[in-house]
Amino acid sequence: MEPFVTAFANSPDRGRGLARDMAVRWALEEVGQPHAVHRLTFAELKAPEHLARHPFGQIPTYEQNGLVLFESAAIVLHIAERHGGLLPAEAQARARAITWLFAAVATVEPPIVERSMALLLEADKPWHAERLAMLNARVAARLAQLAHHLGEKTWLDGAFSAADLVMVAVLRRLSGSGLLDAHAPLAAYVARGEQRPAFVRAFAAQQAVAQRNA
Amino acid sequence: MEPFVTAFANSPDRGRGLARDMAVRWALEEVGQPHAVHRLTFAELKAPEHLARHPFGQIPTYEQNGLVLFESAAIVLHIAERHGGLLPAEAQARARAITWLFAAVATVEPPIVERSMALLLEADKPWHAERLAMLNARVAARLAQLAHHLGEKTWLDGAFSAADLVMVAVLRRLSGSGLLDAHAPLAAYVARGEQRPAFVRAFAAQQAVAQRNA
Repeated sequence: MEPFVTAFANSPDRGRGLARDMAVRWALEEVGQPHAVHRLTFAELKAPEHLARHPFGQIPTYEQNGLVLFESAAIVLHIAERHGGLLPAEAQARARAITWLFAAVATVEPPIVERSMALLLEADKPWHAERLAMLNARVAARLAQLAHHLGEKTWLDGAFSAADLVMVAVLRRLSGSGLLDAHAPLAAYVARGEQRPAFVRAFAAQQAVAQRNA
Repeated sequence: MEPFVTAFANSPDRGRGLARDMAVRWALEEVGQPHAVHRLTFAELKAPEHLARHPFGQIPTYEQNGLVLFESAAIVLHIAERHGGLLPAEAQARARAITWLFAAVATVEPPIVERSMALLLEADKPWHAERLAMLNARVAARLAQLAHHLGEKTWLDGAFSAADLVMVAVLRRLSGSGLLDAHAPLAAYVARGEQRPAFVRAFAAQQAVAQRNA
């Protein structure tokens, strides 16, 4: 049976491909795996049926033949382990790719999400400007370290992998912030990801939903 | 050759086992893998030699036979894949354990770290009390969801796994906050982790260093 993933019925990003289902859709496109997308309203995310799939009531989830997974990076790793092309075959290179996959969601993404949360939840607070400057500095420090690692490399470690896919999806959450533009290697890296045909297909699929909603 | 991991020469937690090397040491004790620990000063963390191991200048790293890894959860997964006892053999249960491993560091840990950062960096700001209340509520929401999932279970999903090891290590960062005590299943879960002989050995090893430093 083909897998199905869950996504927002009405994504707050209005089709910019910044929600966490994007990485999963992109990975499925990379490996050529047909799939269905179930779109859930915010009320449905908190309903018992979805909480049984995802204990934290978020998207995406992945379901196939009775297996239910959540956490976008875990789902991407699962897809990468079962299809060719998203993980190196050599054991040490594979372990390094998995390290970068964790780095994307555990080291690079948290300050980016924190910054988004401040913009969303604290924009009217008297402290907002001072905190936003702190958060921008924290994100910028991570980006500088990542840009230093990337240097002239095309991808994080050798060929394109699941780690690049998730890292690009994470960095895209900074779209419009101007923070990526400070680092030419990072802006070029994200652009390379966005130019992959599988990205283009996944992006178009989620954008079409947003346009129908609009 | 036996692996070596890096840890703080002088951990800011003064031996409470809250630094991120704890999960790696614990995993190595669970599988009975002898290892060396290289302790680094804060200056050494930012030196080129360590940045070549860890692009973000943090601990822990893991090195064996020329393979260098960072990200504690990635290292724990690497250890679990190469030894018995930390991942289910059955494919679907294994994929679910890896989902929980990502959930520990990508969903549960970020608000906990954000709260610690606020206590460390913003305690003297006029907004601290109001923000701390927001951060406590955010952590509490995650803990309630996790406690609901755990219920009467002993571990997250069947037998003890790498995911429980990392989740317990993440939840221990709330020691002394009182936030865990609101959820009896979570407090009992953490206590079960801390009672494992491998945890006790790893904890004693890092505590001995702190006591020599004191």
